Amino acid sequence: MERLSLNQITTERWNLREAAEGCARAGIGWIAPWRHKVAELGLAASAQAIKDSGLRVSSLCRGGMFPAATAAEREERLDDNRRAVDEAATLGADTLVLVCGPAPDRDIDSARGWVQDGIDQLVPYAREHGIKLGIEPLHPMYAAERSVINTLAQANTLAERYAPEDVGVVVDAFHVWWDPEVYAQIARAGKRILGFHVSDWIVPTPDMLLGRGMMGDGVIELRRLREAVEAAGYAGPIEVEIFNRVIWDTPGDDVLALMKDRYREHVL
Amino acid sequence: MERLSLNQITTERWNLREAAEGCARAGIGWIAPWRHKVAELGLAASAQAIKDSGLRVSSLCRGGMFPAATAAEREERLDDNRRAVDEAATLGADTLVLVCGPAPDRDIDSARGWVQDGIDQLVPYAREHGIKLGIEPLHPMYAAERSVINTLAQANTLAERYAPEDVGVVVDAFHVWWDPEVYAQIARAGKRILGFHVSDWIVPTPDMLLGRGMMGDGVIELRRLREAVEAAGYAGPIEVEIFNRVIWDTPGDDVLALMKDRYREHVL
Repeated sequence: MERLSLNQITTERWNLREAAEGCARAGIGWIAPWRHKVAELGLAASAQAIKDSGLRVSSLCRGGMFPAATAAEREERLDDNRRAVDEAATLGADTLVLVCGPAPDRDIDSARGWVQDGIDQLVPYAREHGIKLGIEPLHPMYAAERSVINTLAQANTLAERYAPEDVGVVVDAFHVWWDPEVYAQIARAGKRILGFHVSDWIVPTPDMLLGRGMMGDGVIELRRLREAVEAAGYAGPIEVEIFNRVIWDTPGDDVLALMKDRYREHVL
Repeated sequence: MERLSLNQITTERWNLREAAEGCARAGIGWIAPWRHKVAELGLAASAQAIKDSGLRVSSLCRGGMFPAATAAEREERLDDNRRAVDEAATLGADTLVLVCGPAPDRDIDSARGWVQDGIDQLVPYAREHGIKLGIEPLHPMYAAERSVINTLAQANTLAERYAPEDVGVVVDAFHVWWDPEVYAQIARAGKRILGFHVSDWIVPTPDMLLGRGMMGDGVIELRRLREAVEAAGYAGPIEVEIFNRVIWDTPGDDVLALMKDRYREHVL
């Protein structure tokens, strides 16, 4: 239970102070804030709220979104990523999660190239600030709208261009569970695994974005995936990250209680 | 234009006779019937309707659905696949498309094993009847509900267990466009490519099942994919297969006219 982390999007109605206090009440020791929630409260107040609740930060969500149609726009995206690194450092996160972004047009290969260019340029800045970059492959159904990095194999190949101290991967069960190569690629990632996220894949899936389920409500072999990332060497926090309208409409304290039960039953 | 084929689901409101006559009016020389539509009209009447309209059959949709919780159920699925082979032969199709089916539970590896077992058992029967089996990898977002075969790499590995005369793969642009390995896997498939399907990926995607778009309305590099399957050796019919409520609600003749225009503009 000491590895459980609340990814803040799971309690979307709470601001960061409410989420931090909710974790403290529930005995959850980790939190993963989202940048729009940090901005809402202010960076200094966010860091203070997390400190006041005695929490550690498992990651900051999210940097990335590198591809854009013009060089000027790509430079703006990079500036925003540098701000994300600053925020991660101020909040005491080790890892900035990268959701790498969609293509601005039909040319997915160029977009993938811009992701690599963006990471190339971000790495020295992140290293200087003591922040690791965690490339999170997103489910292929998000390839057109959120990220052109869609398999763990692809994320590993990208990460391996850099030192393991600088760039790794984030394994989110929802995004990778379907992949015939997932266990081989988790083993390949090894010590580069910088985060492990859990939720579930509900059948039938109610919505492409807001259709994730609480652990145990779907078909993902969560325990098997948890054992695989541990066998690969990962011993860090396990984030629960759920985009789901019904869960968002549930009082946060109830969500945290259910999350703890389901984590115990289906992940541990 | 002589390679264009109507996958019958694109004009879902038409029965098979109406679809065949619609193709003849539009100057489309190929059709891919669906089994529930064949059953609706009757097998002999379906074969006659296709013959009367002077069409050739690009494939029959669909066999597969191999995984099931009990051996008895899996045997029933196999019986149904044998009937599908019979129907394909009667209709004059060369290829039966296999949508391999979801797992009955959380155990995706066992389900993948049952797919292989099912194909093992079906191959001799299909060969005897002159029917090739075309394994169609489905988009990973359908892994829990429609098929545990989700990448072209996986379909190729499965197909390569058999003679190229017996088992190949079907490349549907909607299912594979996002895959970083798609062009390498198309080249690998080579002469095993038994079909090529086109439609488009709309942004934002309106629905997981009924959200496919007409060619040109989305982000898929259709021409590039068509050139790749041709470079790999495929010279057969190109099916337009679109699950989309708006298109289904449009008069079939209008859909066929639009389909021809878009095929010319975005595929050829």
